[in-house]
Amino acid sequence: MTKKEAEGGGEAAEPPPPAARRPGGRTARVRDQVLAAVGPLLVEHGYDGLSVDAVAARSGVHRATVYRRWRDVGGLLADVLDAAGADRWTAPDTGCLEGDLRALNEEVQDALSEESSLAMALIAASFRSAGAADALRRFWEDRYERCVDVVERAVARGELTPPVETRGLLVAATAPLYHHLVLLHGAPDPALPGEAARTAVLAARAGAFGTRSRPE
Amino acid sequence: MTKKEAEGGGEAAEPPPPAARRPGGRTARVRDQVLAAVGPLLVEHGYDGLSVDAVAARSGVHRATVYRRWRDVGGLLADVLDAAGADRWTAPDTGCLEGDLRALNEEVQDALSEESSLAMALIAASFRSAGAADALRRFWEDRYERCVDVVERAVARGELTPPVETRGLLVAATAPLYHHLVLLHGAPDPALPGEAARTAVLAARAGAFGTRSRPE
Repeated sequence: MTKKEAEGGGEAAEPPPPAARRPGGRTARVRDQVLAAVGPLLVEHGYDGLSVDAVAARSGVHRATVYRRWRDVGGLLADVLDAAGADRWTAPDTGCLEGDLRALNEEVQDALSEESSLAMALIAASFRSAGAADALRRFWEDRYERCVDVVERAVARGELTPPVETRGLLVAATAPLYHHLVLLHGAPDPALPGEAARTAVLAARAGAFGTRSRPE
Repeated sequence: MTKKEAEGGGEAAEPPPPAARRPGGRTARVRDQVLAAVGPLLVEHGYDGLSVDAVAARSGVHRATVYRRWRDVGGLLADVLDAAGADRWTAPDTGCLEGDLRALNEEVQDALSEESSLAMALIAASFRSAGAADALRRFWEDRYERCVDVVERAVARGELTPPVETRGLLVAATAPLYHHLVLLHGAPDPALPGEAARTAVLAARAGAFGTRSRPE
């Protein structure tokens, strides 16, 4: 997820017509205002600096409204992620599986390594808020579903032989990026998106993501 | 890292002779006492419940001593990890590369999914303490170095053709576990250690971890 996405689906760069943007009128406008205040507070002050009162003050929305609708910080973070997941993001389409996965990894690396990364702040918050953790998982699962296209195109081009366990392939392709940037707190590595993509493709072509044989 | 390791290298299960255990006499004894207090506090109360005062109280060591030697919570967490890294851990040796990587992944999954996981608490703390983040990175890098044996044995058995970029192979084999358990906050998956190991082996045999070709 890029910062722009997490702030509400890239509306700043490409504003949709008002009717599509505010289907609920005032209610949706209030949501836009409140969620737009969460990201900057989280990035600037971390989870500790985030409170319903601070979000209300920054958004200009009455605190009683914010408490009633979002209840607590976990509710606010979950809604930021749900809003980010409601965007029109589609997986990269570069013409080959390795290129698609590399482009996906480059998006991940850009989002996690930009200064004041909202994506990184949301991941950090997921360790302290069950609501944020649940929403982050929903966000990722939704992204995995949208990436099914990448695998289907690869199968259609004859790059992969079905059945392919799509989620396993996507996790294998992207997990080394998250591991390096989030868990090892490493600096961005310009070679890693391509290497991790290539590794996953080699494994896939060798049959790594056929049907799962579970021990249960 | 297992909880036992993070508490000081598995001393409880197999006590080394006193001379080896306390090379520095009273200083080392104080360190043992203080570090033994950190883990349970972190697991029970999280990072927020961890303070130099709480650690001093629980360890029975004078708070001035703890402040002088460890300074702050980051210093305490870093020393817990450094102590865990000073154990005698060696990589699993099952007779084949896939078996070694699966056993490694099973250790990772056990450590991260046990109730009150110290490993998980330390990872969570690494988002809030630069000292803990640095120490966690050192701990992992040391583990990667000790796992060189796994790759060297695979080369000696003819399972892999050198050169093999060991660290890349180890990250590919283990990252899906961390991704599932730590980032997606998923439940333990009994099939995942073996699947991630198999994927990494298939990629390695297809040449994924040859020499790095970096764009710089």
